[in-house]
Amino acid sequence: MIIDTLLQKIAEKDNPTVVGLDTSFDYLPEAMRAGVSDAKGAAEAIVAFNEKLIDAVADIVPAVKVQIAYYEMYGVEGLRAFARTLAYAKERGLVVITDAKRNDIGATAECYAKAFLGETAIGASSVRAFDSDFLTVNGYLGSDGIKPFLDRAAAGDKGIFVLVKTSNRSSGELQDLRLENGKTVYEYMGGLVEEWGKGLVGASGYSCVGAVVGATHPAQAEILRREMPHTFFLIPGYGAQGGTAEDLKVCFKADGTGGIVNSSRGILCAYRKDAYKGMPFDAAARRACLDMKADLNAAIKG
Amino acid sequence: MIIDTLLQKIAEKDNPTVVGLDTSFDYLPEAMRAGVSDAKGAAEAIVAFNEKLIDAVADIVPAVKVQIAYYEMYGVEGLRAFARTLAYAKERGLVVITDAKRNDIGATAECYAKAFLGETAIGASSVRAFDSDFLTVNGYLGSDGIKPFLDRAAAGDKGIFVLVKTSNRSSGELQDLRLENGKTVYEYMGGLVEEWGKGLVGASGYSCVGAVVGATHPAQAEILRREMPHTFFLIPGYGAQGGTAEDLKVCFKADGTGGIVNSSRGILCAYRKDAYKGMPFDAAARRACLDMKADLNAAIKG
Repeated sequence: MIIDTLLQKIAEKDNPTVVGLDTSFDYLPEAMRAGVSDAKGAAEAIVAFNEKLIDAVADIVPAVKVQIAYYEMYGVEGLRAFARTLAYAKERGLVVITDAKRNDIGATAECYAKAFLGETAIGASSVRAFDSDFLTVNGYLGSDGIKPFLDRAAAGDKGIFVLVKTSNRSSGELQDLRLENGKTVYEYMGGLVEEWGKGLVGASGYSCVGAVVGATHPAQAEILRREMPHTFFLIPGYGAQGGTAEDLKVCFKADGTGGIVNSSRGILCAYRKDAYKGMPFDAAARRACLDMKADLNAAIKG
Repeated sequence: MIIDTLLQKIAEKDNPTVVGLDTSFDYLPEAMRAGVSDAKGAAEAIVAFNEKLIDAVADIVPAVKVQIAYYEMYGVEGLRAFARTLAYAKERGLVVITDAKRNDIGATAECYAKAFLGETAIGASSVRAFDSDFLTVNGYLGSDGIKPFLDRAAAGDKGIFVLVKTSNRSSGELQDLRLENGKTVYEYMGGLVEEWGKGLVGASGYSCVGAVVGATHPAQAEILRREMPHTFFLIPGYGAQGGTAEDLKVCFKADGTGGIVNSSRGILCAYRKDAYKGMPFDAAARRACLDMKADLNAAIKG
């Protein structure tokens, strides 16, 4: 199962870091942006940046998370860059998470499942649109909007991460509300996720139905870790958003497993930081990944 | 404001119907599918179908809703067809709603806002990726994930529809839960929507922050209509999903305004129904739109 593959790669590299390829054209070094003035040029430059970055970190990180919004904003050319980035990361042996937070009614969720975790028939042939190992999804619509993804997980070695407690400041507006049974909305969603994962639990003890749990809300994360023993966490919010390794260590179990921590800008734009001054962007990204690995492991295993 | 434009077009055409262009390649007449075996061919055929369909209904409906999942499943070529469909509908004078249910933290929601309701800078130039009048969004992340869209609404004559009570069978799993204050989750979300719409209310009395309220849950829709006086409803679930005109009339006020009702398969695939047997798909779609208009108006105004 893909969740076991992910845990194995984390163990091999001793690194629970996922590199977030939220590659805005503006993040590129000036030399890569010079003379570019259309979507096609921007998309080409983004792919060149992503490929170099992937080359620089592929031996030290287990996975990449590609945030589709950063590609959609460049239109069709941006999505071509997105697809090429997924393919290149896969080719380099990384687990590929598409961060798209898709959600819809069953029949439409089926289309998203085809797009990201399966294939779409066209007459007698078929096309793989944006082939990923995992997809992030939003569970506001309940089970029938999730089922098409579970079917792909069961059939094709795929997985999902469902939004449970997000990393943003206003996540509590809805997610922290208390229900009449005393549980919060995020706990209720966590319960659904555990339920959806039944029957999809791998040898690692974790299921192919993971949860997004932000590094920025440790009190809630601690509750979720306790209530969701079979659920692996995708943890955004480290670094630029303010979450620290100390904050997020509650997402991990005593054996050091339990989640993978995303960093995007902190790695993509490392070359702009004082700490990595004068380094090429890819070398700076590699150094930032190693520093992050040390920081996380000290907190989680320390 | 775009919400006033939408109401005006509904009034002019005396038709609260939005045509859902959830155009799966499989929905096309056999002659349009013959010989097509790749994504590019499928995308071309879908555009040809959509354009003919838009031509057939542009004088009798106010708007189209284009469901992006049906295009994403064909990859980059599908998204090219999506962009062309949006542009053609706009050219024909229709209000264009992109149904994408996007959601993310603020910085990423900003990318989606650029992609669908604005433009993305590339050096000194910029690109409009998938330019729409309205975008559907999911509010699970709270205010800061919605703000970038509100900024576009305020600045650029754009609008959104936020998922409040969806049309699918399992929508109640989360949305109908009762909070400790006695309100349900969908009512709470409805309250946020009314709040987000403040300052964006047009001459019509409705704001540019609309709500998705399914035709299939009349009891909940009635409560929401009462609690959300400034909110215009986008109403899915009519027809194929089982919602009737009688079910959804609670979404409308005594003056006959209050919502716009989507039909997708019922119009796209009308040519396959006994009622329209032997008609070309575009003529059948037009007839289905007129039948739907009569059905809705009899219930809403009757």
